[in-house]
Amino acid sequence: MMELGLSVEMVASWMPGSRVEGTAVAIRDIASPDHLQPGDLCFIGDRKYVSEIAGNTGVCLVVGSDWEVPIASGNSLIRVADPMKAMIEVCLRVERMLWPMPDPGIHASTVIAAGAYVSPAATVGPFVVIEAGASIGDGVVLDAHAYVGAHVSIGKGTRVGPNAVLGAYTEIGKNCIIGPGVVIGTPGFGYRFDAATDSHVAIPQIGRVRVEDCVEMGANCAIDRARVGESLIGRGTKIDNLVHIGHNVKIGKACILCGQVGISGSVCLGDYVVMGGQVGVGDHIRVAPKSQIGGKTGVISNIDEEGGKYFGIPAMELNVALRVASLQKRLPELFKRVNQLEQEIRNKGQE
Amino acid sequence: MMELGLSVEMVASWMPGSRVEGTAVAIRDIASPDHLQPGDLCFIGDRKYVSEIAGNTGVCLVVGSDWEVPIASGNSLIRVADPMKAMIEVCLRVERMLWPMPDPGIHASTVIAAGAYVSPAATVGPFVVIEAGASIGDGVVLDAHAYVGAHVSIGKGTRVGPNAVLGAYTEIGKNCIIGPGVVIGTPGFGYRFDAATDSHVAIPQIGRVRVEDCVEMGANCAIDRARVGESLIGRGTKIDNLVHIGHNVKIGKACILCGQVGISGSVCLGDYVVMGGQVGVGDHIRVAPKSQIGGKTGVISNIDEEGGKYFGIPAMELNVALRVASLQKRLPELFKRVNQLEQEIRNKGQE
Amino acid sequence: MMELGLSVEMVASWMPGSRVEGTAVAIRDIASPDHLQPGDLCFIGDRKYVSEIAGNTGVCLVVGSDWEVPIASGNSLIRVADPMKAMIEVCLRVERMLWPMPDPGIHASTVIAAGAYVSPAATVGPFVVIEAGASIGDGVVLDAHAYVGAHVSIGKGTRVGPNAVLGAYTEIGKNCIIGPGVVIGTPGFGYRFDAATDSHVAIPQIGRVRVEDCVEMGANCAIDRARVGESLIGRGTKIDNLVHIGHNVKIGKACILCGQVGISGSVCLGDYVVMGGQVGVGDHIRVAPKSQIGGKTGVISNIDEEGGKYFGIPAMELNVALRVASLQKRLPELFKRVNQLEQEIRNKGQE
Repeated sequence: MMELGLSVEMVASWMPGSRVEGTAVAIRDIASPDHLQPGDLCFIGDRKYVSEIAGNTGVCLVVGSDWEVPIASGNSLIRVADPMKAMIEVCLRVERMLWPMPDPGIHASTVIAAGAYVSPAATVGPFVVIEAGASIGDGVVLDAHAYVGAHVSIGKGTRVGPNAVLGAYTEIGKNCIIGPGVVIGTPGFGYRFDAATDSHVAIPQIGRVRVEDCVEMGANCAIDRARVGESLIGRGTKIDNLVHIGHNVKIGKACILCGQVGISGSVCLGDYVVMGGQVGVGDHIRVAPKSQIGGKTGVISNIDEEGGKYFGIPAMELNVALRVASLQKRLPELFKRVNQLEQEIRNKGQE
Repeated sequence: MMELGLSVEMVASWMPGSRVEGTAVAIRDIASPDHLQPGDLCFIGDRKYVSEIAGNTGVCLVVGSDWEVPIASGNSLIRVADPMKAMIEVCLRVERMLWPMPDPGIHASTVIAAGAYVSPAATVGPFVVIEAGASIGDGVVLDAHAYVGAHVSIGKGTRVGPNAVLGAYTEIGKNCIIGPGVVIGTPGFGYRFDAATDSHVAIPQIGRVRVEDCVEMGANCAIDRARVGESLIGRGTKIDNLVHIGHNVKIGKACILCGQVGISGSVCLGDYVVMGGQVGVGDHIRVAPKSQIGGKTGVISNIDEEGGKYFGIPAMELNVALRVASLQKRLPELFKRVNQLEQEIRNKGQE
Repeated sequence: MMELGLSVEMVASWMPGSRVEGTAVAIRDIASPDHLQPGDLCFIGDRKYVSEIAGNTGVCLVVGSDWEVPIASGNSLIRVADPMKAMIEVCLRVERMLWPMPDPGIHASTVIAAGAYVSPAATVGPFVVIEAGASIGDGVVLDAHAYVGAHVSIGKGTRVGPNAVLGAYTEIGKNCIIGPGVVIGTPGFGYRFDAATDSHVAIPQIGRVRVEDCVEMGANCAIDRARVGESLIGRGTKIDNLVHIGHNVKIGKACILCGQVGISGSVCLGDYVVMGGQVGVGDHIRVAPKSQIGGKTGVISNIDEEGGKYFGIPAMELNVALRVASLQKRLPELFKRVNQLEQEIRNKGQE
């Protein structure tokens, strides 16, 4: 059980210009308004919610500077200009407190090949393996059981989660987060069928994966290396859990790919593309910058216009897709109406 | 190659009230009726299948007490009241025999931080890492390469598979099974776009994941920790392979989530919800208890009524969805009929 | 950064019958025609592309024997009969050079149970765990952190990637590639609901997984063991990343399963079946040999005819599915036309 162990004064000191009222409570946790328990700190985003939460006791509420708040005894009140802005600041401090960066140093159990460079300012956890020619920058954290292949380079300040696998020649930029169990740099999925031997023969995959700065990816993703050249994840792109990215894919800057998205080989996504969960993109497809693709959409032809919204299998413009989804439910009715029309026409013909 | 090495007598002794006939065979494996080989033990669920399998030799058949079974020489027959019930009992014993629980003890290679508690009745496999403040209960098994973060607690009798990752503060209940490669407790996928720096800024994720008792999950799942408070997997819920569960999700008791299901952030599933493979649920959606959602369905609006069945993208009531799926194939015909009607009306107008 | 460090002469010597022209350049990388930089080797598949790339400098171009190529000074030209065939041969050599097989030997950190057999001609990386009764053949490579359960057998020449997990009794054939993070042999997902205890009770899963020769699978796949008997992956089948395969599934020979495909329990795929990304197949479905199933398709009834093409949810014949997808976008128009027809009929009735 997590316990923050914070005082109201401490928390208030993190919110410039704040004012404390009421009884001091010991803060044990931060909670959303609908799950309040004694000891919780809660940020109220709008004065209209004040009445709903005023009945709690033993909680610390962060509210607007000038809101009328009927405070029950036994609660704390912290008044600030913008409670939501204050929340982000406080949560950031709490996150750093609860998930502190480990101290630099190399655990005795690691296996580091001769010819690998590890910065003295890096942290290397237990049972990490680093192959020859790899280069690990300042402030990098390699968590337990991470595997760093030959000639991999990892930029300053990047964190690689437990059990992640970086295949040979992968380049990771600065300040990235590679989640636990992520696999980068496996050979792309390319075969040609050989009739003589009645078998699929692997096409050599001699490229690499390059991940630019500030990219973050969740757990258990898989990113293949290119057939030739590179698979590229652009600067600042954020990738959720269990995402699959094929060989030779180019992903632009500041894209958002939600859980279980699948990107086939040689796809090219422009900058700022956003994809909901379980979207799939067929091979060699190009998606224009700022496109927004709804969850579960299947993109099987190029999207050329910037900033459009899409949904459906195959992808349609969002407003068309929603209209179709709604009309499709009325297909049974439509068939009946057409039957009826045919009947009437036939009757008229016999008059 | 697996070899059970069991005698007919041994197996019969596991089925109370059973009666043995025919020649004793050495039992090497258990098989289904359509794949029988000499040495196989086979449970026959219905007397109508007896004729199909009677031609085999060297097998041991479990049949009903009073069925007429023309037994060929060289086969064994075990008669019981309910062959299917007997099968479950026998298979349970065989499963425990073939996949025995390891003896308690801590492998010499493990790295356990000062301040972590590990019960002397727990089993900790090779290369496991346990961080400070973690608490490992009686009878817990941590398989090879498991990673247990700071302040994680794991209840009595839970098994954590090889290469699984439990992030800091995760709480796992009693008698759970966490599959190999599962990742729990990574930060939720939440960003706000900051125009000033032209980048996505991570929203702090300071909550945790709580998994109640008797939850089981398959391989390579990913479950994110909450933004505040907790992501919750309810008691007795069973989760298949490669399932993604976002931050702040609440999953009820005794739910069934099949392979590759994806649950977006802040979703709330009631108790006894069943989801087929590859179902996706959009963020903040609520699904009523006992809902049954067919494979590949996309749920993008709340399901309020208990016990309904749904299918399609977006989700429709199952009977509507099946009717629509069937009519949709007839769209080419429908367009033709409407063309025809228009033609006839036009002709009539000209008469 | 990867640097090949090859000379034009060396590369040309790998292409029988080749002829070198122009200035010798130091070859640093292999690139596709649209991303050429100085030092790149590039294979031109068709003479029509020659004009586009002729403007580059410091590159080495592989072209047809008799093509007219206006070669700029500072470039190398290698002439061969079939540039694309030459490319595969050269890339294969480069792949073996860049990703060399490790030398045989067992890393000192491994944990190998008494009673496991490891060929002296196998390679076992750091922190690998091999349980009792396992058998590791000649030329097998077990990469770092791989887990090999009890009684697993791995055939000659197979490679098991970092962090892969092979559960007890799994049989892997010869010359297979098991990707990083793959999990094979977890219990199948089978429960029966027990009203008395209000809970799902696991059905024992006492079978195994058998993978035939020359099977390859990508990263983070999950394959469950059978309830009884075996889950089977047929010879030469190739499986992409993040694929889920349930218990008792039989997959034929030389199938292709793209990224994130999900195969439910007891499915049977014939030989040479090809599935695009994110295809899902419902339980107990049979798919005929040589079927081709487009990405995102949901197969919920048997496919009996060999060699058909399918797409959609639920699966339809491809040509029907494409026609339906196109007409479905015109549903708003169709509803309008039927409204109009009804209006006209009504008007006529009143004439």
